[in-house]
Amino acid sequence: MKDKIQIICDDREPLSQKMFCETIDSGIELIRKRLNEGDYICGDVVVERKEINDFCSSIMDKRLEHQIENMKLKYKNIYVIIVGRIKDRTTEIDEHCILGMISSLLVKHKVSVAMVDDEFQFLYLIKRIFERHLEERDEN
Amino acid sequence: MKDKIQIICDDREPLSQKMFCETIDSGIELIRKRLNEGDYICGDVVVERKEINDFCSSIMDKRLEHQIENMKLKYKNIYVIIVGRIKDRTTEIDEHCILGMISSLLVKHKVSVAMVDDEFQFLYLIKRIFERHLEERDEN
Repeated sequence: MKDKIQIICDDREPLSQKMFCETIDSGIELIRKRLNEGDYICGDVVVERKEINDFCSSIMDKRLEHQIENMKLKYKNIYVIIVGRIKDRTTEIDEHCILGMISSLLVKHKVSVAMVDDEFQFLYLIKRIFERHLEERDEN
Repeated sequence: MKDKIQIICDDREPLSQKMFCETIDSGIELIRKRLNEGDYICGDVVVERKEINDFCSSIMDKRLEHQIENMKLKYKNIYVIIVGRIKDRTTEIDEHCILGMISSLLVKHKVSVAMVDDEFQFLYLIKRIFERHLEERDEN
C-alpha cells in the first residue's frame, strides 16, 4: 500500500476535511497547525484555498495580493485554488475585476491557479499536485 | 483610446467570438487564420481553449498531451483555459482523471490553467493575459 501523503493544513480550515481524510482512503494525512502563510503545505509547495466569495472579498480588500507577496518570500511553488465558480458569487464585484486578478496571479505573480467545484475535488487535486512535486524532487 | 489588441485565432474557433469582438468595444481584434498549434496566439503566448467535454475527450484519447508537447516546442507561455465546470461534463470520465490531468498540466508541463464559465469570461481573460505579457515585454 502506498504511504499516505502528509500535508500540513492551517487549523482554521474546515475540520470536515480532516474527518473526510480519516474516514475514507483518501491517501492524505492532514496535520492541523496554525500557519502564517497559505492553507496547505508540503515541502516547498504551498496552496491557498479560496472559496469564490472569499476570493472576491480578498481582491476587494487587497488581502490576496498581500498574502501572495508573503508566500513568495517563503515558497517556491504557489497554488491558488478557487472552490466554486465566478458566476456563483454573491459578493458584489464585477466579473472583470475577478478575471483581472486571475490574469495578474498567472502573469505577474507566476502563481498557478485552478478552480474546482467542491471540497472533494479540492482535496484530490492538492493531493495529486503535492505527489507530483514529491516525485519530481525524488527524481532529482 | 487604447489600441485594440491583435490576437490570431484558429479559424475553426467559434465565429460568434469574432462577431462579438466587432460589435462591442471588447478591445480585441481577432484575426482568423489556420493554426497548427493552439487556438489563440499573441507574440510568444499561446492559449488552448477547451470546452469541458472536449477537455475530457482530449484526456481520454491522449490528444491533449500531444497538443501540449507541440506547443512547448514553439511557445514560451502556454495557457489551457477550460470553459465550463467539471461537474457539468456529459463525457464518461472519472473526475479523478480530470483532476489528475490538471495536476499534470500544472506540475509536469508547467502550463498555466484557468477555468471560466462562458465565452465572454474567456475572451476577457485572454485579453488581460495577452495585455499583461505585452506590458512585461515592453518593460524589458
